[in-house]
Amino acid sequence: MSLPTIPIITVFERSPDGGKGLARDMRVRWALEEVGQAYEVRLVSFGAMKEAAHRALHPFGQIPTYEEGDLVLFESGAIVLHLAERHAGLLPDNANARARAITWMFTALNTVEPPILDLQTTKFLEGDKPWYEQRLPLVQNRIRDRLGELSDRLGAADWLDGAFSAGDLMMVAVLLRLKASGMLAEYPNLSAYVARGEARPAYKRAFDAQLAVFTGKPPTA
Amino acid sequence: MSLPTIPIITVFERSPDGGKGLARDMRVRWALEEVGQAYEVRLVSFGAMKEAAHRALHPFGQIPTYEEGDLVLFESGAIVLHLAERHAGLLPDNANARARAITWMFTALNTVEPPILDLQTTKFLEGDKPWYEQRLPLVQNRIRDRLGELSDRLGAADWLDGAFSAGDLMMVAVLLRLKASGMLAEYPNLSAYVARGEARPAYKRAFDAQLAVFTGKPPTA
Repeated sequence: MSLPTIPIITVFERSPDGGKGLARDMRVRWALEEVGQAYEVRLVSFGAMKEAAHRALHPFGQIPTYEEGDLVLFESGAIVLHLAERHAGLLPDNANARARAITWMFTALNTVEPPILDLQTTKFLEGDKPWYEQRLPLVQNRIRDRLGELSDRLGAADWLDGAFSAGDLMMVAVLLRLKASGMLAEYPNLSAYVARGEARPAYKRAFDAQLAVFTGKPPTA
Repeated sequence: MSLPTIPIITVFERSPDGGKGLARDMRVRWALEEVGQAYEVRLVSFGAMKEAAHRALHPFGQIPTYEEGDLVLFESGAIVLHLAERHAGLLPDNANARARAITWMFTALNTVEPPILDLQTTKFLEGDKPWYEQRLPLVQNRIRDRLGELSDRLGAADWLDGAFSAGDLMMVAVLLRLKASGMLAEYPNLSAYVARGEARPAYKRAFDAQLAVFTGKPPTA
């Protein structure tokens, strides 16, 4: 009898956020914790990420990757969906509700994240350019357009479509990137939504595990 | 005996691209054609897209939407995945190969499309700004980083992972947004890859159908 395969994920050896849980491995860790799947972690340096051995796993030289026996995946969205499809807890049983939950995953990654990512790209890569201060409000307002629409749809609900799903996991993870900007606070229902995500025991376990890479202290069991 | 449900998609009444097939309904039309599913189209004006009736289908006031009986979906990625999961032809049978094909869908939408979209956003919304000319090369080079990595992974293969899949459909659709920029031509294997996509009969049928919205002439049967 063979032992069950423990998946291995790759994460930053030194995350640029210093352990604030904003790197994309956090989404995968959170999903693994939600479904109760043990996992192992392999740390990758910025240099090693761009070398052939890592690019064989991830063509774009990034993290996270996911190895499970012969299967190699990259892209946090694809990994979370893979976990959600193979374990209970992240997608509803009803086929239509399932398709809608997956819609929210794509919404988080293709409609909400791009303008948020643009804010970070602008700060990191264009912060020293003469146009930075003038351009910043344009970038922020594109984010506000999306947040306003998302806020309207969420309304007074706890989660985007019924019970917590992989769609909420991904949306909360994407919105968390805005925490330091103060923009989330302009939308009280979105702030509360993100706080509900952060309050989940699985989120906390995942957060502590990624932080432990920095502190060197293993999370308390 | 009830008739099978014919899905209804929404598309631009007047696409900003004038029928070049770059609007996101094209991805859904293409997937519908690949799997041989008949569909109906409802045209939506820019004004109507932002009104409550359409926002009930699409919280962000965009196209496409997908209605199939009681099910309402938005986000081209989610709709294509829904079709790919319910019909043969867009995902391999093998579970691992299937997960990898879905990975390429997420890659197209979350890794490759955002910098490409930034180029379009920059042109449309910042083309008259004083920084436009200086900033453009930065935006273009972020796209080149991604294209170079994608080109390396594709190599001499016809498709990204074995047979044509929903991952290729989405990647080709995203890369097509670059056609007018001339940047694709810098990567001959990517140009050939996109041309292979465009040469598929299902692509051509979908292209003709979206063009007919503009010309008023129905596509030849």
